[in-house]
Amino acid sequence: MGVHDHKEEAARAVGQLTAGIVTVSDTRTAETDESGQLLRELLTGAGHRVEAYAIVPDEVEAIRSAVVRFAERVDFVVVNGGTGMTPRDVTIEACRPLFSKELEGFGELFRMLSYQEIGSAAVMSRAAAGAVGRVMLFCLPGSKGAVRLATERLILPEIRHLVSHIRKR
Amino acid sequence: MGVHDHKEEAARAVGQLTAGIVTVSDTRTAETDESGQLLRELLTGAGHRVEAYAIVPDEVEAIRSAVVRFAERVDFVVVNGGTGMTPRDVTIEACRPLFSKELEGFGELFRMLSYQEIGSAAVMSRAAAGAVGRVMLFCLPGSKGAVRLATERLILPEIRHLVSHIRKR
Amino acid sequence: MGVHDHKEEAARAVGQLTAGIVTVSDTRTAETDESGQLLRELLTGAGHRVEAYAIVPDEVEAIRSAVVRFAERVDFVVVNGGTGMTPRDVTIEACRPLFSKELEGFGELFRMLSYQEIGSAAVMSRAAAGAVGRVMLFCLPGSKGAVRLATERLILPEIRHLVSHIRKR
Amino acid sequence: MGVHDHKEEAARAVGQLTAGIVTVSDTRTAETDESGQLLRELLTGAGHRVEAYAIVPDEVEAIRSAVVRFAERVDFVVVNGGTGMTPRDVTIEACRPLFSKELEGFGELFRMLSYQEIGSAAVMSRAAAGAVGRVMLFCLPGSKGAVRLATERLILPEIRHLVSHIRKR
Amino acid sequence: MGVHDHKEEAARAVGQLTAGIVTVSDTRTAETDESGQLLRELLTGAGHRVEAYAIVPDEVEAIRSAVVRFAERVDFVVVNGGTGMTPRDVTIEACRPLFSKELEGFGELFRMLSYQEIGSAAVMSRAAAGAVGRVMLFCLPGSKGAVRLATERLILPEIRHLVSHIRKR
Amino acid sequence: MGVHDHKEEAARAVGQLTAGIVTVSDTRTAETDESGQLLRELLTGAGHRVEAYAIVPDEVEAIRSAVVRFAERVDFVVVNGGTGMTPRDVTIEACRPLFSKELEGFGELFRMLSYQEIGSAAVMSRAAAGAVGRVMLFCLPGSKGAVRLATERLILPEIRHLVSHIRKR
Repeated sequence: MGVHDHKEEAARAVGQLTAGIVTVSDTRTAETDESGQLLRELLTGAGHRVEAYAIVPDEVEAIRSAVVRFAERVDFVVVNGGTGMTPRDVTIEACRPLFSKELEGFGELFRMLSYQEIGSAAVMSRAAAGAVGRVMLFCLPGSKGAVRLATERLILPEIRHLVSHIRKR
Repeated sequence: MGVHDHKEEAARAVGQLTAGIVTVSDTRTAETDESGQLLRELLTGAGHRVEAYAIVPDEVEAIRSAVVRFAERVDFVVVNGGTGMTPRDVTIEACRPLFSKELEGFGELFRMLSYQEIGSAAVMSRAAAGAVGRVMLFCLPGSKGAVRLATERLILPEIRHLVSHIRKR
Repeated sequence: MGVHDHKEEAARAVGQLTAGIVTVSDTRTAETDESGQLLRELLTGAGHRVEAYAIVPDEVEAIRSAVVRFAERVDFVVVNGGTGMTPRDVTIEACRPLFSKELEGFGELFRMLSYQEIGSAAVMSRAAAGAVGRVMLFCLPGSKGAVRLATERLILPEIRHLVSHIRKR
Repeated sequence: MGVHDHKEEAARAVGQLTAGIVTVSDTRTAETDESGQLLRELLTGAGHRVEAYAIVPDEVEAIRSAVVRFAERVDFVVVNGGTGMTPRDVTIEACRPLFSKELEGFGELFRMLSYQEIGSAAVMSRAAAGAVGRVMLFCLPGSKGAVRLATERLILPEIRHLVSHIRKR
Repeated sequence: MGVHDHKEEAARAVGQLTAGIVTVSDTRTAETDESGQLLRELLTGAGHRVEAYAIVPDEVEAIRSAVVRFAERVDFVVVNGGTGMTPRDVTIEACRPLFSKELEGFGELFRMLSYQEIGSAAVMSRAAAGAVGRVMLFCLPGSKGAVRLATERLILPEIRHLVSHIRKR
Repeated sequence: MGVHDHKEEAARAVGQLTAGIVTVSDTRTAETDESGQLLRELLTGAGHRVEAYAIVPDEVEAIRSAVVRFAERVDFVVVNGGTGMTPRDVTIEACRPLFSKELEGFGELFRMLSYQEIGSAAVMSRAAAGAVGRVMLFCLPGSKGAVRLATERLILPEIRHLVSHIRKR
C-alpha cells in the first residue's frame, strides 16, 4: 500500500467525499466564476475533494452532459446557476429528469431559509436536489449568497448521510 | 404623442403593470365577491391597473378559458378560489398544465406564512404560481385572509421582478 | 337500534373517524413496531378508532395493496416507514400514483416543523399526503419523533376538515 | 320558432355539428392557407358548419388561446400545422396539456394509414387528439394530404360518436 | 404429495396460469355479464384457471381495489369495460398509475387489428396493458368482439412469455 | 483545405451523417455483439460513419451516460437491447427522459411492421425514438431481426430528414 493509498484510506475514514462543480453561465470564465470558487472553498474546507469542474452555457444538453460525465467519477455534483425564471434558465429542466429519486425537501428548506435572509425574493429560486443513481445532485442559484446558504446550512451537514443512504442496498 | 400616451409612458416608468382577476365561484356575483374586490384594491393601491375581471364557475374549461383570454391582454393574472381539497376545487388542475415554468416556491412560501397566521389549517391550501409564456399566473385560495397574505407578502413585492424575468431573452 | 349502533352514532356525533395503520418494514413485528404502536395511541387518544393494521415489507405492490384494501373500510390511512432516500424506500413511489388530489402542503409543513426540531436532517424526509378518492392517505417517516410530530401537529388538528372536504359534492 | 330556428333544428336532426379551424403557420394568409381551405370544404361537405377560423403563429400561447376560445363556441376544433419535429413545431406541446382525455388511437391510426400512402415518412407526424372537456380537439399535420387522410378516414366517420360520448353523463 | 398437488404440478408443467377477471359496469350482473363470461371461456379453453372474478362499478377506487386484490393471487388480470371516451370511462385512469412498466404495444396493436375488423371506430378504444410488479394487467373494451379479438390475437399467444419476462431477475 | 477536409466536404454533400452505437448487454463483448455489428454494417452501407461504439450494462446511469457522451459527437445515436419487459430492461427508462421531443410514431410503426413479420410477439417491444436536443436517439430491441427491420425500414429512409428537421431554427 503506497503513500497515495494511505492518504485515500485516511480521507475515507474521516468521511471525505469527492465532488464535481458545474457552473452554468454564458459569460463567466474560471477567473470570474465567483460562485464556483466559493463552492470549491466551502467543499474543500469541509474536507471534501473537488475532482471535476466545468463552466457550461445555459443549454439543456450541455448541462446534462456535464452532470452525467461528472456523475461517473464523484460522490456528488453541485450545479450553480440557471435556476431562475428567465427563459434562459434551464438547469432544473436539464437535471430533474435525471433524478432517480427527488429530494423534495431540499428546494423547500432552501427557500424557507432564504426567506429568512432575503424575504420574498426567495420565491424566485427553483433550487432542487435528488439522487442520480448512486450520486447526489444539487442545483443551486448562481449567487454567492445562495451558494453559501445552501452549502453551509443544508448540503454540508447532510451530504454524508445522503450519499450513504442512496448507496444502501 | 397624445395625453393618453404620456400617461401610459409615465405609468410604465414607475413600473405599473396590468392585471386580470378571475374569481372562481359557483355562487358569487360582482357585488358579493369580497375577495375579488380586495384583490382589486390591493393591486390598484400598489399602482397596477386591473384591466380584466371575471367570475367563473368551478369548472376546468371555464377557468382555463378566462385565464387564457386574460393572458393575451395583461402582465399577470390572479385567480382566487377553487384551490382547496373538495372535488369541486379544480383551479390547480385547470391552471398547472398551462405553466411553461412553475414557480414552486410560491405555494410553499404562502403556506409557510399562512402557517404562522392560522396554524395547521394552512395545509389545506394548494396555492400555486407560474409563468404562462410571458404572463405570470397566480392561484390563491378564495378567502380574504389568504388573498391579503399572498398579495401583500409575496405577489406585490416580487411581481415586477417576476414579469421582467419571464420576459427576458 | 342496538347498543352497538348507539355507540356508533354517538361516536360519529363527536367526530370520531376510523383509521388504518400500515407500517412499512422488512424486520418489525407487531411487538417491535414502536412507531405503529405510537400511531395507534395518538389516534385512539384523539377519539378515533383504528380498524385496520398491517406490517408490510418495503415493496411497492405490498404497500399499495394494504393501502387500497384499508381504504375500502376506513376514513383515513396512515403509512409509516419507507419515506427516506435509500433504494429500499418505496412508500412514496407506491402511494403517490394513488392520489386523486395531492395535499402538497403536508410534506412541506412537516419538513418545516421538523427542521425546527432536528435541523437540516429534515431534508431527508419525503413525507406526503393526499386524497385517494373519499379517503385521506398520509405517508410518514418510520421514526417515533416523526410520527409524533406529523400526527400531533398536522394530522389530528386537520383530519376532520380534510375528510369532510374530500367527501363534499 | 323562426326560420333560423327551424334550420338549426333540422341541422341538429341530421347530426350537423359546429367546428373551429385553427391553422398554425408563421407565413400563411387566409388566401394561401390551402390546408385550412381544404378542411373547411371537407367539414362543410359532410354537413358540419365551420363557425370559427384563425391563422395563428407557431407559438404555444397563441395556439392554446385560439383553441380555448373556439372550444367555447363549437363542438370540435381541428388544428392543422405545427405537428412535426422542428423546434418551431409546438402544436402538440400547446394542445396535449388541455386534453381531459387523450384519444390515443387517433395519432396511431393516422400514422398507420399514412404509412400505407407515404411509407416511412409517416413516422415524422405527431398528430394527436383528445377531449377538452365537452369539445373534441384534433391536431393534424399542415399538408393537404395529411388533412384529407385524417379528416376523411378518421374524423368524419367518428366525430358524431366522439362528441356524443364525451358529453355523456 | 397429494392428488391436488400432482394436478397443480402437471398444470404448471404445461404452462397453466391463474387469472383474475374484472368486469367494469354499473348495470351488469354475473348472469348478464356476457363479455366476462366470454373471457372466462377463452382463458379456460386455453388451459388457464380463472381464480377471481368481480363486477365493479365505473369508479377509479373500486376498479383499482379489485385489481390490486386480485394481483396478490393470480398471474394476470384482465379488466373489461370502461375504456371508452365517456366521462364515466375511468378504467385506464384507474389502472395506468399501477403499471410498473407499460406494454405500449398492446393498445396500439389491438387498435390496428381492430381497425381491420371495424374500421375507424377502432379509434374510440383506449385499451392498455402493463406489468403491475410480477403480475400482468390488461384493460380491454367491454364488448364481446373486442374481448375476443384482444384475447385470441394478443393475450393468449403472448401471456406465458409476458409473465415469464416480468418475473425474471 | 487538406485531403481530409475535401473528403469531409464530399461526405456531407451526399448526406453522410455520423452515428453512435450503444449495445446494452450484461454479457456481450465486441466480438459477440452481433446486433451491434449488424447495425454498423447497415449504417456504413448506407454511407454514414460510425464514430462511437460502446457496450454498456443494463443500468440506467450507464446507458444514459453513453448516450449523452455520444450525443456530443455525432448526428444520431442508436441504442440496441434492453427494450423488453424484464425488470433488467431499462433502456427506455434511461432514454425517454432525455427526449426534448419524442417521435411517437417510431415505436408504433416499428411494432406494426414487426407484427407483419413475427405476429403477436411484436407486442413485447418498447422501441422508441426522439430528439435529444440536436441529435436523434433511437432505442431498438437487441435482436438482429429487430435491428434490421427498424434500421432498413424506418431509420435509414428518414434519418436525413429527421436530423435536418430537429436542427431547423
